[in-house]
Amino acid sequence: MSRATSPAAFSQERLARAALTYLAEPGDPALGALLGICTPTEVLAAIKADMLPGTGPGCGDSTASRAAMERALGRWRVRLTRLPGETDIAGACRDGIRLICPGDPEWPDGADQLGQARPYALWLRGNADLAFACRRSASIVGSRAATAYGAHVAGELAADLGERGWAVVSGGAYGIDAAAHRGALAAEAVTIAVLACGVDYLYPVGHADLFAAIATQGLLVSEWPPGCHPARMRFLVRNRTIAALSCGTVIVEAGERSGALNTARHAADLGKPLMAVPGPVTSAQSAGCHRIMREWGAGCVTSAPDIIEMLSPVSVPDALAPGGAGPPPGADPAPSRDDLDPDSARVLDAFPAHGRAGTSTIAVDAGVDIDTVLRCLGRLAGYGFIERCTGGWCLRRLG
Amino acid sequence: MSRATSPAAFSQERLARAALTYLAEPGDPALGALLGICTPTEVLAAIKADMLPGTGPGCGDSTASRAAMERALGRWRVRLTRLPGETDIAGACRDGIRLICPGDPEWPDGADQLGQARPYALWLRGNADLAFACRRSASIVGSRAATAYGAHVAGELAADLGERGWAVVSGGAYGIDAAAHRGALAAEAVTIAVLACGVDYLYPVGHADLFAAIATQGLLVSEWPPGCHPARMRFLVRNRTIAALSCGTVIVEAGERSGALNTARHAADLGKPLMAVPGPVTSAQSAGCHRIMREWGAGCVTSAPDIIEMLSPVSVPDALAPGGAGPPPGADPAPSRDDLDPDSARVLDAFPAHGRAGTSTIAVDAGVDIDTVLRCLGRLAGYGFIERCTGGWCLRRLG
Repeated sequence: MSRATSPAAFSQERLARAALTYLAEPGDPALGALLGICTPTEVLAAIKADMLPGTGPGCGDSTASRAAMERALGRWRVRLTRLPGETDIAGACRDGIRLICPGDPEWPDGADQLGQARPYALWLRGNADLAFACRRSASIVGSRAATAYGAHVAGELAADLGERGWAVVSGGAYGIDAAAHRGALAAEAVTIAVLACGVDYLYPVGHADLFAAIATQGLLVSEWPPGCHPARMRFLVRNRTIAALSCGTVIVEAGERSGALNTARHAADLGKPLMAVPGPVTSAQSAGCHRIMREWGAGCVTSAPDIIEMLSPVSVPDALAPGGAGPPPGADPAPSRDDLDPDSARVLDAFPAHGRAGTSTIAVDAGVDIDTVLRCLGRLAGYGFIERCTGGWCLRRLG
Repeated sequence: MSRATSPAAFSQERLARAALTYLAEPGDPALGALLGICTPTEVLAAIKADMLPGTGPGCGDSTASRAAMERALGRWRVRLTRLPGETDIAGACRDGIRLICPGDPEWPDGADQLGQARPYALWLRGNADLAFACRRSASIVGSRAATAYGAHVAGELAADLGERGWAVVSGGAYGIDAAAHRGALAAEAVTIAVLACGVDYLYPVGHADLFAAIATQGLLVSEWPPGCHPARMRFLVRNRTIAALSCGTVIVEAGERSGALNTARHAADLGKPLMAVPGPVTSAQSAGCHRIMREWGAGCVTSAPDIIEMLSPVSVPDALAPGGAGPPPGADPAPSRDDLDPDSARVLDAFPAHGRAGTSTIAVDAGVDIDTVLRCLGRLAGYGFIERCTGGWCLRRLG
């Protein structure tokens, strides 16, 4: 399929946010500050006009910060020549790629915890609902140069988390990341790869099949627009997003200088549970894990239940696993059936009173396209109306 | 050699304490309470007379506790038939075996931290000074069914601690304990085996050579009198002594039900640093280590410097290692040369102004026996007057 979204489906603000992902590197503090006081449309106009918007508080309120802002403006303007037209920006949303912005139902709560370093927008590719998946998720990251032990443990933890209804977030790299994604996929669970390049870029190229599988069963996520190549600094910036999107971060193997420790640092700075898997003290690939246990207070975890306990301080049932007991901890209060958005209400109405239904059957019965039905299913499961069952979905018997 | 100590060298109190180690199991709360209010001589007389001493506070101050005390008296009297005469008790101090009591210079501070569960006395065999060695010591304990990994790590940690001037305390058992003792011995360091039987009993029998080596270079320690056999409960009682004597406890490998976790519990209860060595999460022998890291807050240690840091909250130089910089942390303030006890002063005077001297040379020059010189050397090193050097001891250049 090659359906592209028409520019008409994009609001001016959405187009502006998409354009900003082409012009500025994610996490640029100047742009974060500017977006705190101006709309994305105003910021984009200012970049194009080479003129800072106003002199209000926050930007331009001192000579020093005004000078910094002007330097930033110059930095962003450099890329104007490569900014696609509005039609092409909207057209990037094809082949399962979509753009989400702050305030969208699918925008994950965790992204907003980054404050001024919040992503300007997120490019997604895949069938899962990001906000829903992140509400009950753990990052599993680690060394690219993983040992057989580390890869084995990462895969087992991810599969066991997946079987218990938890999504696994990672970075799509070789080694621990790949083992974690594959473990979740094997458990038929949602897994999210947060990339340092466009969601269509396929880096590393050896993971093309893995990314295709993730897009089918989970999500590829990026702050960089389609077509964007990875770069060294981008991996570091990306790491904060891995930490922010998930409920907590598990380091499976990390040498003393592993980039995984950068993700760990972000998780700790965000006040999110940080965990590490122990290994032989004779293994250099476990040295970073042991150090963050000792020096950063990372929790020592050896199993999926250990991780879930760290992420759920109050004991909660495995709510969204088959036969589970309710919405995930931290979920918004479930709306009543009458308060559902129209698409979700239609999808819910399409459910048979008894037994299960497959995704495509529900789509046909509800009269909505498959992307919409997938998104609505995530939302309805999150609210506790439906649950996964063997071979599809079914209504949850309440009370 | 087979020199026995004559009863004349024993005070009445010392003889009474020695007798109590024959009559009561260590850690008997009734005897601990009684020794809090009566002298050992009074307690021994009361047992022999089958009459509780007085009705003062603490014992016999209520019907219930009086009844408990009378039951205890009966318990201890059962063993009166096997109590050796005074000559034989004193005669047990032969072949390098000696008895130390609370208040003796060699009595370790840690023993007193046990409160009413304090040992009545300690039987020692070996050449090291217990009080001195314990001031800078770590317990390394773990599973008897150790893996090759665990035994390797225990040996390496013990050897490295030994090279840095730290004594290694353990339980003399197969597995981790033996690997720890052997590591310390290989580093020519002091190692202390705290036994659940007499210091001459040699249990397990396969460790006869190990115990002989420990007696030569370190110490065998027991609360049970010579000749006493081990018993299941005695190992548990002994574990509190391992935890109490050392500055902190390291668990190298422990299955979920390992006795090493009992030692760990005692260390935690005594408020002493508790540490664990991580291992593969796939190894059952590391499961107990990981659990106490997670649930009891045990520190994750992977090297001797990690352990030393946990035991020395304020960074201190390796004071007693060759070339070190001063007395161990927590040591009593060093007396001036004029304030030394007469034996230590004589031993110090026997040192050559330059170069090294061996232990027996010093003994001859000082005109004291070899046991005395060994004890004095430990004390003088602790005070910072002398230090170990290759092939013997030498004066430390102060300032």
